[in-house]
Amino acid sequence: IAKEVAKLLEMKAQLGGDEGKHKFVLKTPKGTRDYSPKQMAIRERVFNAIITCFKRHGAEVIDTPVFELKETLTGKYGEDSKLIYDLKDQGGELLSLRYDLTVPFARYLAMNKITNIKRYHIAKVYRRDNPAMTRGRYREFYQCDFDIAGQFDPMIPDAECLKIVHEILSDLQLGDFLIKVNDRRILDGMFAVCGVPDSKFRTICSSVDKLDKMPWEEVRSEMVGEKGLSPEAADHIGEYVQLHGGLDLIERLLQDPKLSQHKLAKEGLGDMKLLFEYLTLFGIAGKISFDLSLARGLDYYTGVIFEAVLLQQENDHVEESVSVGSVAGGGRYDGLVGMFDPKGRKVPCVGVSIGIERIFSILEQRVEASEEKIRTTETQVLVASAQKKLLEERLKLISELWDAGIKAEVLYKKNPKLLNQLQYCEDTGIPLVAIVGEQELKDGVVKLRVVATREEVNVRRESLVEEIRMRTSR
Amino acid sequence: IAKEVAKLLEMKAQLGGDEGKHKFVLKTPKGTRDYSPKQMAIRERVFNAIITCFKRHGAEVIDTPVFELKETLTGKYGEDSKLIYDLKDQGGELLSLRYDLTVPFARYLAMNKITNIKRYHIAKVYRRDNPAMTRGRYREFYQCDFDIAGQFDPMIPDAECLKIVHEILSDLQLGDFLIKVNDRRILDGMFAVCGVPDSKFRTICSSVDKLDKMPWEEVRSEMVGEKGLSPEAADHIGEYVQLHGGLDLIERLLQDPKLSQHKLAKEGLGDMKLLFEYLTLFGIAGKISFDLSLARGLDYYTGVIFEAVLLQQENDHVEESVSVGSVAGGGRYDGLVGMFDPKGRKVPCVGVSIGIERIFSILEQRVEASEEKIRTTETQVLVASAQKKLLEERLKLISELWDAGIKAEVLYKKNPKLLNQLQYCEDTGIPLVAIVGEQELKDGVVKLRVVATREEVNVRRESLVEEIRMRTSR
Repeated sequence: IAKEVAKLLEMKAQLGGDEGKHKFVLKTPKGTRDYSPKQMAIRERVFNAIITCFKRHGAEVIDTPVFELKETLTGKYGEDSKLIYDLKDQGGELLSLRYDLTVPFARYLAMNKITNIKRYHIAKVYRRDNPAMTRGRYREFYQCDFDIAGQFDPMIPDAECLKIVHEILSDLQLGDFLIKVNDRRILDGMFAVCGVPDSKFRTICSSVDKLDKMPWEEVRSEMVGEKGLSPEAADHIGEYVQLHGGLDLIERLLQDPKLSQHKLAKEGLGDMKLLFEYLTLFGIAGKISFDLSLARGLDYYTGVIFEAVLLQQENDHVEESVSVGSVAGGGRYDGLVGMFDPKGRKVPCVGVSIGIERIFSILEQRVEASEEKIRTTETQVLVASAQKKLLEERLKLISELWDAGIKAEVLYKKNPKLLNQLQYCEDTGIPLVAIVGEQELKDGVVKLRVVATREEVNVRRESLVEEIRMRTSR
Repeated sequence: IAKEVAKLLEMKAQLGGDEGKHKFVLKTPKGTRDYSPKQMAIRERVFNAIITCFKRHGAEVIDTPVFELKETLTGKYGEDSKLIYDLKDQGGELLSLRYDLTVPFARYLAMNKITNIKRYHIAKVYRRDNPAMTRGRYREFYQCDFDIAGQFDPMIPDAECLKIVHEILSDLQLGDFLIKVNDRRILDGMFAVCGVPDSKFRTICSSVDKLDKMPWEEVRSEMVGEKGLSPEAADHIGEYVQLHGGLDLIERLLQDPKLSQHKLAKEGLGDMKLLFEYLTLFGIAGKISFDLSLARGLDYYTGVIFEAVLLQQENDHVEESVSVGSVAGGGRYDGLVGMFDPKGRKVPCVGVSIGIERIFSILEQRVEASEEKIRTTETQVLVASAQKKLLEERLKLISELWDAGIKAEVLYKKNPKLLNQLQYCEDTGIPLVAIVGEQELKDGVVKLRVVATREEVNVRRESLVEEIRMRTSR
């Protein structure tokens, strides 16, 4: 049988070749997807919640190109740089797709000499990562960034970023969540007192960053085996990274004989204490955990860092199947703008990025499970006819409605059946039908039908717009 | 002197080299730009007008990735294909940035076996063209596309597309405009009766397409000289492409002894007549010109084609300086989906694309000229204090306001001066200031100041949210 199958397959291939037709692969590129109208409806709900929050906090909005000069991105992402998409050299400048919105933002600030701005930016970014699309990990994905740039008193903008994450995650009703915070200065102090050589800070930091995906034992062996750290230093780190808590832990570490002697760590701990005071004033300290294992992968952070994770709910069957991790992250990057400024002038920045794809995965699955019917259009009325030969009359009426700002549709048929027209309303959720007929035309009225109740009333043509507005203004 | 300069320059270069600093170019890639908050505010007005119109016509919305498999774009754009941006081959699939939204739409329909949809899609597309940025021509630019796919009775969806262009251009108040229409079948018929060989139809069509930028003499010499058309055929075409008009011209051509004998041309003219009847019902025939010189560059059109141009207003100094051309274009492409379907199944489509960048250029210049002050945030109230040491109280109050959905800001300073806080409101257009002070805290009130009138009232803290809502609901 196998032989026969092989022969048939070969014949098939030959046949394909004879037709001169190249086997065309009908797909989107690896790690990307289309959004259907239904998915777009869910996505727009999420965007609305996020944008509303950003605007509530007084943010302006900017936009930057999808690609940057390659050198703009060079040296900003540490070990992640290998994931950057480059464009082909077709003559002219060497370009890369943006990897995040933070580096383009810093480039924008330096280029326009802006030293003070609070802005949001919602756009797609690109990473040649291994996609895990069922868990909301894509190569093309949206980031929703809010950043505050400027020289301000300590920790006030930082606290606002955390407030924003708290507001958005609460608003979207994604279930329980926790926001982990740490500080790069505390991490560096920790590495110093554990005996990590200065030159290994960044690479050991990358290892610590893997603690949310790997057990400590593996991270430890990466540190010792691959990165050549002494076992004693690793074990010492191992003790610190288990620590998490609130003000109590901050106080304890401020008393830590070694850490409190480290200038940067002490500064970081002092700021962390201040941050928790502000978070308490905002009423959100209960959802924040100071966590020494939080490291964040990117190179450019210089102070506070944070990451929000959704907590698995054991009783919620819908969400159990989606393993979500981090849904928001960010931190302070006081040196990045200076990397672009010809004179190295610094603009302190702190910001947060909401990871919309994972949130979207959860909401999409929730909608699927609930069998909630989502409308993908906003059409208020279908202009229909009961008899034949009324296309002209339908077009005249719908034109009047459009010009009055009514959202209206008509079937693109000369003589559609009334049943088909009503069915279209059922399928798409259109609440009203405006029916023209010979008699109605003579009488100067239009028959308005409510799809849900099948109620029908004759409305004078000159009152139709008002009547439709009233009936669809809920 | 030149020698000295050269020496100095060399020294400077060496110095740069010594510092190990590479001269960094701080710019966006050629043909692209950032959008500042003010530009974004204008852009969002335009998008809102367009999206409102698309929704009024019952469109759903979809989204597709910014890049496609390279082969998805191959063979769809004719002579324009050389302008496609390719991604670098970094292992894996060969990818290109999308050149328009139409081909990805057709790919989406074929891939999902959709035979019936009315959708819009607003996204950036990419063309390695020679940018002319002052005239709104970029390498990265937005397209706002509305398309109707499905097997319907002739010219009803086509007429709706023209109605949409008319509504949007009227709504945006860009001044007088004209929508030129033609039909690829009429063009092909015209080429046939003029003696153009079949094999030269597409390339001669490309030449005709240049008539809006070049005089006829140049186009003629391209046809004859570069493309090897006989002078007689070219002259014959020259007579036809001067023709433009309305129903009268259609009737005349239907009587044209040669053209009326050409099957496709006759079909096209019949449909054109029907189209004008529908446009008359929509009340927009006055702005439509049947124009035999309209050709459209892209290969995939099969029937009606159209293009909207703004008419220069001689008395309007603002617009005189911006030379805008086409601001919208589109047409029927009945074969494109079939190119993606493994069995070649066709889905007839017609659609329109609004060219937002040129519209944006005009509006931006108009705003500059009018000195209209555009707000870039929506903040309703600044939470301020008159005395020192009230940061905590300000944070507590603003947190209450945020939680109640009020758009509020606070200066990120421990002890800001009241004058600076009021100045911030003036600069950014914030209408209200909520001032906390020792006395107000004791009395359980907040002092609410109206920035424009300097009026101040004490509002009980529990009524503050309601009071702000009332005062900012215009």
